[in-house]
Amino acid sequence: MQSKTSHCKIVDCTIRDGGLVNNWDFSVEFVQDLYASLNEAGVDYMEIGYKNSPKLLKGADSAGPWRFLNDDFLRKVIPNKDYTKLSALVDIGRVDEADILPRSESMIDLIRVACYIQDVDKALELVKTFHERGYETTLNIMALSNVLENQLVEAFKQIKESVVDVVYIVDSYGSLKPNDFDYLITKFKEHLPNKRLGIHAHNNLQLAFANTLLAANSGVELLDSSVYGMGRAAGNCNTELLLSEIQNPRYNVRPVLGMIEKHMIPLREKEEWGYIIPYMVTGILDEHPRSAMAWRASDDKDKYIEFYDQLTTPETSIKK
Amino acid sequence: MQSKTSHCKIVDCTIRDGGLVNNWDFSVEFVQDLYASLNEAGVDYMEIGYKNSPKLLKGADSAGPWRFLNDDFLRKVIPNKDYTKLSALVDIGRVDEADILPRSESMIDLIRVACYIQDVDKALELVKTFHERGYETTLNIMALSNVLENQLVEAFKQIKESVVDVVYIVDSYGSLKPNDFDYLITKFKEHLPNKRLGIHAHNNLQLAFANTLLAANSGVELLDSSVYGMGRAAGNCNTELLLSEIQNPRYNVRPVLGMIEKHMIPLREKEEWGYIIPYMVTGILDEHPRSAMAWRASDDKDKYIEFYDQLTTPETSIKK
Repeated sequence: MQSKTSHCKIVDCTIRDGGLVNNWDFSVEFVQDLYASLNEAGVDYMEIGYKNSPKLLKGADSAGPWRFLNDDFLRKVIPNKDYTKLSALVDIGRVDEADILPRSESMIDLIRVACYIQDVDKALELVKTFHERGYETTLNIMALSNVLENQLVEAFKQIKESVVDVVYIVDSYGSLKPNDFDYLITKFKEHLPNKRLGIHAHNNLQLAFANTLLAANSGVELLDSSVYGMGRAAGNCNTELLLSEIQNPRYNVRPVLGMIEKHMIPLREKEEWGYIIPYMVTGILDEHPRSAMAWRASDDKDKYIEFYDQLTTPETSIKK
Repeated sequence: MQSKTSHCKIVDCTIRDGGLVNNWDFSVEFVQDLYASLNEAGVDYMEIGYKNSPKLLKGADSAGPWRFLNDDFLRKVIPNKDYTKLSALVDIGRVDEADILPRSESMIDLIRVACYIQDVDKALELVKTFHERGYETTLNIMALSNVLENQLVEAFKQIKESVVDVVYIVDSYGSLKPNDFDYLITKFKEHLPNKRLGIHAHNNLQLAFANTLLAANSGVELLDSSVYGMGRAAGNCNTELLLSEIQNPRYNVRPVLGMIEKHMIPLREKEEWGYIIPYMVTGILDEHPRSAMAWRASDDKDKYIEFYDQLTTPETSIKK
């Protein structure tokens, strides 16, 4: 018997989204151990970084190699690619198409294009290019909590006609409740009956796993997560929770517990992510965590009332 | 217009459930600041401890005063009781009825009786006594994830005929998913149409807030939580999240952010609770966190694979 979640696939984003925490300062050993543990756990995809071009980004020199993936490098890092496929994210305007090999010559299987609603047209152009080179593709529409429905319906028309395989619902600010996801998933299914769906949740309100579970039970297929929740600000849905609760005989949480024990606990001592009050505050206010990230980097990082007052008092707002 | 959650009342359990973390070692200043912040935030009830009898418990001498509440003491701690009512929990077989004043002479408004399913009859006897002395009452059935439905239906018959005001669904092991709560709430409503309902969730799988929100949207009235989630093992639903998301014009999260800033952050440096892997493991295995608590108190506390293997390998199980 098929269970209600056996159609799901897990996309682990630890390196890509976690890199936003530590400027992609992951050792090759870390990434190799992660690949081995995800592969043994039965995780379907590992998003191993960004495929943006260093020429098109400021401050590129200081970042680790996972920010600008290179196929020759990847072949050395993962010489024995196995069950777990590799994924890369690109941003509109930051990717050089000349960098993208045909899939048959590449380590990467899946290319995901992230964009805001107003750039869906540009994103779909990129998707078309990657699709023609043989990649699986997704379109990840960010910050959906701040999108008016008329804009969304307009975007759906373009998406429906496009070649993209999977369309993601992205809760960039971690502000969406299960009822909101329920609403959005129904809307996406209604307008995009020919597309598979994905979800990328953030944990500002401790709802990332609950929202992802709801999505899985509602037919959403690609589930983003990261090990021990590592991701920008409040972080993501936890890979270990999905492995435990999504029904798939291949999934096994044990290897990922080993990854947490060996690498994530020491890393969490140095870098911070997760349920931290300023991120909860931007979540309840439905806004980008950048103000909270700046606050956490300051000497006032644990002055929560002052942060809350600045964000909720219009004349002193620091939020833009 | 009534919102879907405006019927809800928050019961903050920081002192009572959090006391299980630090042996009720809260200063009078801490408890006074908590009462002031909850009262200003509009929280409906503060569970200020246990009303068990020290005569009926081992190791009573070492515990703080919140484990054995005394009305004379409470009058000094909270000389200006205001909007927020006070609650106390009692356990079957550990309460001396002679300790319980008539409500008109007591600081306490609500007495909650916790029990396992096989003791519902004894619990309802206690409830009757407290009801006759004028208190609001609840019956908190623990460990519902391990109860067979025939036992539950048998208990419902007794509960339906009793004087108890509110019946709680308690997820003692933090193992229930939203679908499970949906099922249980429907079942409780069907069998207990004359009773109000409550929920007490634990955060082993990061689902305490999501489950409580679902319960609130399904008509459950009393919502248990604690500030910054402080409670045994993985802790509880966070009071600050409920204040932010439950629709009630009285609720204001700001004073509780101040409580977190002043008291909870320093306390969390000394004591641990929350999403910690051994508690997640007992959650996914649907069992009591006692083995995980013992593990976290040992030198092996961060050896997750070893803990997981012990709990999942029958011949070496340490779980009982």
